[in-house]
This record gives sequence, C-alpha cells and structure tokens, in this order.
Amino acid sequence: MSITMTDGATLTAALSASAAELEQALDQLLPPNEGAEARLFDSMRYSAMGGGKRMRAFLVLEGAKQFGVSRTSALRVAAAIEMIHAYSLVHDDLPAMDNDDLRRGKPTNHKAFDEATAILAGDALQCHAFTVLAEEETHPDPAVRIELVRAISRAAGPRGMCGGQMLDMMAEQATAPLDEAAIGRLQLLKTGKLIEVSAEAGAILGKAAPQQRAALCNYGRDVGAAFQIADDVLDATVSAEEAGKATGKDAGAGKATLVGLLGLERARLQSERLVAQAKSHLEGFGERADLLRALADYTIARRS
Amino acid sequence: MSITMTDGATLTAALSASAAELEQALDQLLPPNEGAEARLFDSMRYSAMGGGKRMRAFLVLEGAKQFGVSRTSALRVAAAIEMIHAYSLVHDDLPAMDNDDLRRGKPTNHKAFDEATAILAGDALQCHAFTVLAEEETHPDPAVRIELVRAISRAAGPRGMCGGQMLDMMAEQATAPLDEAAIGRLQLLKTGKLIEVSAEAGAILGKAAPQQRAALCNYGRDVGAAFQIADDVLDATVSAEEAGKATGKDAGAGKATLVGLLGLERARLQSERLVAQAKSHLEGFGERADLLRALADYTIARRS
Repeated sequence: MSITMTDGATLTAALSASAAELEQALDQLLPPNEGAEARLFDSMRYSAMGGGKRMRAFLVLEGAKQFGVSRTSALRVAAAIEMIHAYSLVHDDLPAMDNDDLRRGKPTNHKAFDEATAILAGDALQCHAFTVLAEEETHPDPAVRIELVRAISRAAGPRGMCGGQMLDMMAEQATAPLDEAAIGRLQLLKTGKLIEVSAEAGAILGKAAPQQRAALCNYGRDVGAAFQIADDVLDATVSAEEAGKATGKDAGAGKATLVGLLGLERARLQSERLVAQAKSHLEGFGERADLLRALADYTIARRS
Repeated sequence: MSITMTDGATLTAALSASAAELEQALDQLLPPNEGAEARLFDSMRYSAMGGGKRMRAFLVLEGAKQFGVSRTSALRVAAAIEMIHAYSLVHDDLPAMDNDDLRRGKPTNHKAFDEATAILAGDALQCHAFTVLAEEETHPDPAVRIELVRAISRAAGPRGMCGGQMLDMMAEQATAPLDEAAIGRLQLLKTGKLIEVSAEAGAILGKAAPQQRAALCNYGRDVGAAFQIADDVLDATVSAEEAGKATGKDAGAGKATLVGLLGLERARLQSERLVAQAKSHLEGFGERADLLRALADYTIARRS
C-alpha cells in the first residue's frame, strides 16, 4: 500500500489554488450580469461563486490529472458539478425545505434576493450545468460529453441526489428511526452520488480503462461516505463559529445520522475505516494520486 | 404556397393519438413508484403525466416524421421536453411564484403533495429529462444526443425559459409597462424557446440539412409566438370553465401581454400574421408537413 507523502499544508494550498481557478472558470461560464434579466444571473452568481471548499471540483481536477486531461476540460466539468451542488444548496435552504438564513457565513439566496428568484436561480444553475457539459469546448469527442451528461444527471436526479433529499425529508417526519442501512443509503444518494461522479469524471474525460474508472468511482464513494460522517461529527461537536455554519442542528431536528445511531466514537471509527478503504482503491495509481490520498485523510481531520 | 389539406378533426385525432403514445413513453421513462423515496416518483408522475395538449411533444413527433426518424427516438425526446415543461409548471405554481391551486383542473403539485416535495419533484424532472436524452436508446449517434442536450438545455436555461420567467416576474413589479419589443422578448424566452426547440428536435434527430433545421426552428418560433398571443386572448375572453383553468388573471395581475398593450383586435391580427408566416417556413416540405400546418392554424382557433 502506497504511503501518503503529502502533508496537510500541501493539500490546503492545492485546495486553495484549485478553488481560485474554479472561481475564474465559473466567472467565465456563468452569464454576465447584463440585460433586463440580470437579477437572475446575479442570483446565480451569488450562490455559485465565492464559496466553499470546492471539494467536488478538486476531485474532478485531481481525477483528470491521473489521465493527462486538459485543464480547460477538467475546469469546465468541475464548474458544471459545482453549479449543480450550488443549486441543491439554494433549494435546500428555502423556507419550505431547511429554512436556513445563513450559508457560508452570508445570507442564503432567498434572503439576499427573494424566494421566487432563489427557486429560479437554482433551476437555471442546474440547467446551465448541462449546457456547459454539452458544449464542444468541454471535450472534442461527443461520446465523452454525452457520457458526462449521463453520469452526472443520474447522480443528481431522482435516483441520486433528489432521491436522497426526499429520503432525508421523510426521515425527519418518520416515527421510527432509520437503521444503519437506511441511513447509509440516504447519505449515498443525497451527497455521495455527486461526490462519486466528481471523482469518476476525470476518468470519463480521460477515456480511462473501465478498471481505472471503477477505482476512482469507488474512491469517491468511500470519500463521500467518510465526508458525510465527518460532517455529522462536526455538527455534533464543533461550535458554529469554528464551523462557519449553524451546528448542533441534526440532533435538534431529529435528523437521521450515523452519529445519532452509533454514537460519536463508533461513527469516528467507521469514517477512519472508510478513509483507509478509499485510499486502497488508489493502489494502482502512482504519486500523481497523492493529493487524492491526502484529501481522503483531510475529510476526517478537518474542523469546518 | 402549399394549401393545408388537413381539417381540424384530423388534427385533433392526431393530437390525441400522439398524447396517448407520449403518456406510455412517460410511464416507461419515469421511475416506477417503488422504494422508500416513492413519494418523489409519485409527485413527478403526478405532474408529468395525464395532462395537457402535449403540443411540444406533437411538434417533436411531427418534426421527426419529416426525416424518417424512429418513433422510439422521437418519443424519448418528446418525453424529455415534456418533463422540462412539466417541471416549469410545478415551480411556476408554487406559492412564492404564481401561487396557483389548480392546474389542468386538478390540485397543483404543492397542493396535492407539499411545497418541499413540489420543489424537489420539479428539480428531479428537469434532471431526469437530461438523463433520458443522454441514454443510448435516444439515438445511436452520441453527436446527435449531445446536440439535443445542448439545444434543449439552452432553450430551458438562463438565456431561455428561466430568463423569460425572471423577466415576467420583474414585469409584474415594474412601475412602467413593457413596450412591444420587451413583451415579445419576454414571451420568446419564457415559452417560445422551448416550443422552438421542440420543432427543431426532429431535425436534429434526423441529421437534417442546416436549411431544413432552420426552417423547422423558424416555424416553431412563429407558432410559439402565435400560441402565446392566443393564450392571452383566451385569458381575456373565455370563461374559466371553458378554458379548464383560471382566466382573466392577466389583467388582474397586471401581466405584460400583447393583448393588454395592443388590444384584442390588433393582437388577433398579429397572431394570424404569425400563423401565416409559420406555414410559409414549411414551403419546402411536402404533404408530410400537413399536420404541422394544421397545428399552426389550430393555435389561434382553439378555445382552451
């Protein structure tokens, strides 16, 4: 088993550099704030830009590096996936959903604009992501572009992210708590599938062999699962100030989490097991995958 | 100029037959009502199935007929476009948007389910439409599938339907009324672009020559514009009972329509001019396009 040679500081610097590049890509790919409907574009930019760890983008970019994919291609796919992630947060924050006022330390979209604009901006972000994927600049081979659309839309759709969000809403109203398998499935769908396809996207762009594509996909699935448990652990243990968002909400809302079911210690152990498993999928990859290995470690070491 | 040999009864029968076929396609393409998240699938089906004239689907199917496209391909694309249309109605009906309780004579999605489920079902319908387009069954050539995703996502996105919806929301709050050009642009974006791409889709599927594709696209644009004016005329003149939906709403809501700006008679004249123009684009097409010609006539002759 290869040993991770990348320390936390190197990873943090790489994450920041990728996030800055992604920001530029989003600025180029989102409609400019012009014209009578500029309010829509403004609202899209408000939520898609300037925020977050950009873990999904990082996974796309680092996955793409394994196969020598052009930076332009990788950045466009990373931007598309971040648009989909951003739309899901805008809609999740709505009064009818989680009713959140703050996101990444600033007012949520419907607070900064209004509910109707937030619904519309989310719709437009999702749609625009598929336009970006479909355009020739993303990859010269149409077969690669359509495979990206297929895989990403499946990950975000009724059998992926949207299905998971439905399960999450139903769990809050359920009388009996979910068991471990049901929580695992909920989280795989709600957040895992999009993280998984982020890691897989580089292999699609690079026309990788099925075995390598599956390796990145499995890595992404384990990282996503570890990330979700770590998120729940943070929610239960870290102050809102340190996390930069409201914490302690899960227990209050009766959210179905593995932390609630297994307790902190067993949940932590499971996330460590998942991180080790994630890295094991990268055994066939060389040093070029060290940042991916470091990212797996980081998912459970982070404090926000 | 070719003369329309198809009477209203023939068109109505053809519309019904297409709508029934489309219903079957939707039933096959939407996730079955199974599993823990079945409520989401149920909500998607509630709004995507069992309703409407299916004009967009008819345009896809008849456009595809001009180029001998397989029925399976045409039906999948028609279903995808109808899913996008359905999602836009679910979100438009939400309390934060138009706040409608009834749609096609039955409770709107958020009334039948709840707001959160309606938001999610709309999101999932849009996403699933792109999955359907991307799958190999839609067309063996990936270049055709990706061109469909590109054209349809552009028509539905921030520079298409979503942009038009933003303009519509802003018009309701504007202090000065929109002029004719601004209303025309609003309606082209809000409803026109998706109708346009519905007519164009058959040409994309059939790998038609650019000139033929442009002809269908222009036909669709004019039919869409005529349809919108006719809708506004109906809203101003027909009883809710006859139309099967609330009418007289535009004037009450201060909606920007050409009927409001030009008056009924001039608006009617303009829709007639558009219908004649729509048919003129089909001059290079033979008898196979008669149903498309009849549909153009029907847009302004209909009573609901």
